[in-house]
Amino acid sequence: MSAAAAHDAACIFCKIIKGEIPSFKLIETKHAYSFLDIQPIAEGHALIIPKYHGGKLHNVPDEFLADVLPIAKKLARALEVDKEGLENPIGYNLLQNNGKIAHQVVDHVHFHFIPKTDAKTGLIVGWPAQETDFEKLGQLHKKLVARLEQ
Amino acid sequence: MSAAAAHDAACIFCKIIKGEIPSFKLIETKHAYSFLDIQPIAEGHALIIPKYHGGKLHNVPDEFLADVLPIAKKLARALEVDKEGLENPIGYNLLQNNGKIAHQVVDHVHFHFIPKTDAKTGLIVGWPAQETDFEKLGQLHKKLVARLEQ
Repeated sequence: MSAAAAHDAACIFCKIIKGEIPSFKLIETKHAYSFLDIQPIAEGHALIIPKYHGGKLHNVPDEFLADVLPIAKKLARALEVDKEGLENPIGYNLLQNNGKIAHQVVDHVHFHFIPKTDAKTGLIVGWPAQETDFEKLGQLHKKLVARLEQ
Repeated sequence: MSAAAAHDAACIFCKIIKGEIPSFKLIETKHAYSFLDIQPIAEGHALIIPKYHGGKLHNVPDEFLADVLPIAKKLARALEVDKEGLENPIGYNLLQNNGKIAHQVVDHVHFHFIPKTDAKTGLIVGWPAQETDFEKLGQLHKKLVARLEQ
């Protein structure tokens, strides 16, 4: 089948949405579904998925993405990672991977909601920052703006 | 000021939105703004920010988040990371960090759009997966569902 269709009978996340595979469901809306990841990298690691079988973010119609960030905010409150003024404030990462090279494992768009309380659990971020090169950035910018205007 | 307000005169991203600091602007909508990161970790590394000064995702009203994912899809096309069927498909990560412990540097919600073409550039993901513990997950699930139902 193509990378984008409403439903893929062989997809584990499509099966979870349909209830054919059980899940620890947290929030369900018309267009999205969220549940606990059963191989968490931190306590409270949850997934938010559109009810549309798109392999990558650009394959999913906007309407199926509209509930994702509002759900993430609700999860932040339920997981109590929204608390302010703690001695050791809790952080969280929202991560959505596209492509095997970018760490995507299941080919149905999913957003990881990952609480971060210490250095050893949760998302470990490696950040190979490059030197700022304004000339290179300017050329890229020009090219992208031209494409966006098409 | 509080963690959430429409605008913070001292915030670098609020200044970029207002045009007080120049940026390599890509897409601007009523509620969101995107531009090239000037300290990229990959070519095409861009930021998408709501036009609302919220420190963390849960501080930002839904309406200011509504354009973020549609913009990310447009960036995918402009950066041509949406190409299918390539010998070496291009990937990309969408990452939003909340809290210093979770790698957040600027205290105005921002989504990183990061192309991924090779192992050495782009986002490096560390994934300290835990053993699946259904009993622990079940207890957490029960607690979260109770909070979500409040």
